[in-house]
Amino acid sequence: MKIIGISMGDPAGIGPEIVVKALMNKSVYDRCKPILAGNAKIIEKAVKQLNNSCKVHPVKEVSQALFQYGTIDVYETCSMDHDPEYGIVSPDAGDAAFQSVRKLIGLAKNKLVDATVTAPINKEAMHLAGHYFSGHTEIYAHYTDTKKYAMLLVHENLRVIHVTTHVSLREACDLVKKDRILEVTELLHNACAALGISKPKIGVAGLNPHSSDNGLFGWEEEREIIPAIREGLQRGYYLEGPVPSDTMFAKAIGGQYDGCVAMYHDQGHIPFKLTGFKWNEQKKRMDVNGVNITLGLPIIRVSVDHGTAFDLAGKGIASEQALLLSIDYAVRMAETSS
Amino acid sequence: MKIIGISMGDPAGIGPEIVVKALMNKSVYDRCKPILAGNAKIIEKAVKQLNNSCKVHPVKEVSQALFQYGTIDVYETCSMDHDPEYGIVSPDAGDAAFQSVRKLIGLAKNKLVDATVTAPINKEAMHLAGHYFSGHTEIYAHYTDTKKYAMLLVHENLRVIHVTTHVSLREACDLVKKDRILEVTELLHNACAALGISKPKIGVAGLNPHSSDNGLFGWEEEREIIPAIREGLQRGYYLEGPVPSDTMFAKAIGGQYDGCVAMYHDQGHIPFKLTGFKWNEQKKRMDVNGVNITLGLPIIRVSVDHGTAFDLAGKGIASEQALLLSIDYAVRMAETSS
Repeated sequence: MKIIGISMGDPAGIGPEIVVKALMNKSVYDRCKPILAGNAKIIEKAVKQLNNSCKVHPVKEVSQALFQYGTIDVYETCSMDHDPEYGIVSPDAGDAAFQSVRKLIGLAKNKLVDATVTAPINKEAMHLAGHYFSGHTEIYAHYTDTKKYAMLLVHENLRVIHVTTHVSLREACDLVKKDRILEVTELLHNACAALGISKPKIGVAGLNPHSSDNGLFGWEEEREIIPAIREGLQRGYYLEGPVPSDTMFAKAIGGQYDGCVAMYHDQGHIPFKLTGFKWNEQKKRMDVNGVNITLGLPIIRVSVDHGTAFDLAGKGIASEQALLLSIDYAVRMAETSS
Repeated sequence: MKIIGISMGDPAGIGPEIVVKALMNKSVYDRCKPILAGNAKIIEKAVKQLNNSCKVHPVKEVSQALFQYGTIDVYETCSMDHDPEYGIVSPDAGDAAFQSVRKLIGLAKNKLVDATVTAPINKEAMHLAGHYFSGHTEIYAHYTDTKKYAMLLVHENLRVIHVTTHVSLREACDLVKKDRILEVTELLHNACAALGISKPKIGVAGLNPHSSDNGLFGWEEEREIIPAIREGLQRGYYLEGPVPSDTMFAKAIGGQYDGCVAMYHDQGHIPFKLTGFKWNEQKKRMDVNGVNITLGLPIIRVSVDHGTAFDLAGKGIASEQALLLSIDYAVRMAETSS
């Protein structure tokens, strides 16, 4: 069975709670050998708060892990002088979160774990601790020396990769370039293969409404997107497009595409969140499903697609569903890549 | 009961079939007094093709209509020298479609019908017939001398209006202006009232990802959208925003907003089609629900949100579901406005 390393996330958020809750599922141990990267005291605190009887087993080497249901193996990545307070941004918590990610990456690079899964971190806390990354993805890219990477959002049969993400919509229009479209298409094609889909059919979105209606409004389809699709087809990818984005995702959900290339952040995030996020009117919160896979790295990284939820931390009400899904994807990718 | 005028659409498309199918539902006659605007021969042909026993009753005045289930009243809007062929773009069919819309508008302006519902037309056929409009909305605007109007998309509790529609994404960025945002917000606020929602809560989307994250990527929120929201609040609208568009629609579907203001075509159309359109893998077609209401007109106009489907015409397999929904909305709006 594959060894899956899981970082605990920011200890002031819901990370420790959801990792413990996830490991309270025997099915996880039937499927893989999970090991947490974090701090045993913090994990013990979460176990107690959930009134659970799991044992916490701190290890200094992965080889010491027991991988037994009922015992949570914790690879110690940081010491904590004092308990971080739930819901409070602090440099201590930010540093603990960062160290667990950094050391988890080290384990994966040294092939001591087969795949990694990350719980949410708080950017502000991490910055307070002096680690100036804008998120997990950039930490992974930095410590694995990766230049070409992209985020893949997955929820059921919707798999979405983005040509651009955190830039203004105007800048996104400027960045829709043939080479970048090909780059993410290749990452998506390979990711589908890693998820066990052979000859994936990929829909490439247009940038403009109706994919510009043959140039009536906008020229990016003609100058950048269509040439990228042509070259992609020559390379042997199974592509269709430019598909008007207002129908592409409905088609994808209906099973018409194995993967989707979105041109800008909201083009891909609107359908992803619409299918993966459900507003829970009773609990007045968004129930979040779906995972986030970083493509292009030499190691496997899957993440929940939600944040630290500081407002829910320490209350025992956070859902581990997205983390369980992330572990499942990590196992699948580890199995396919071996 | 309210009189609802329904145009037959392009006779080479699925229009005549779906209007006949809709009027084969007794519930329609329980709810309103429907009358078709079109050509009795074409409607008779559709009735025969569906092996139905309805009578077709041509009338020259609305006052002659029987409004009885089992008899379809057809207000004659055009003569047809020969039968238009299904699935073929032709000036005759385009003219017939156009005349039925134009004359239906006349009936509504003269208060001979309380609301209008339109079946799909083919723009190319209409142009061949010498009527250079880009769609129904422009015909309605022209013949009612309306300057400020917008399309409202409705599917269940998702109600979306657009600041911009058929322009390039770059141009859409330029057209996101305070005055236009206020204009469509007012139209949406009033439309919600017309649909029976008092004090509607409206979400106003950001243009950029994460609504620009406080100006990190993009400035339209700060310069145009936030000032529009401030002024809207002063006018007494119940607004929230700028809401990042990737969560706004998930919230709206969850019941958090009665209406949504989208900044550009795909921002509103992606969620609308994702919830209203379902890919039917068995029939290899998109099952379309949801309606399209033109706001700002002095008369009521509701339309199906699908096209002429020339490929399905004459086969008896088109769905009347969206048309039934459109009739339902037209009745509701007619009842509220009286």
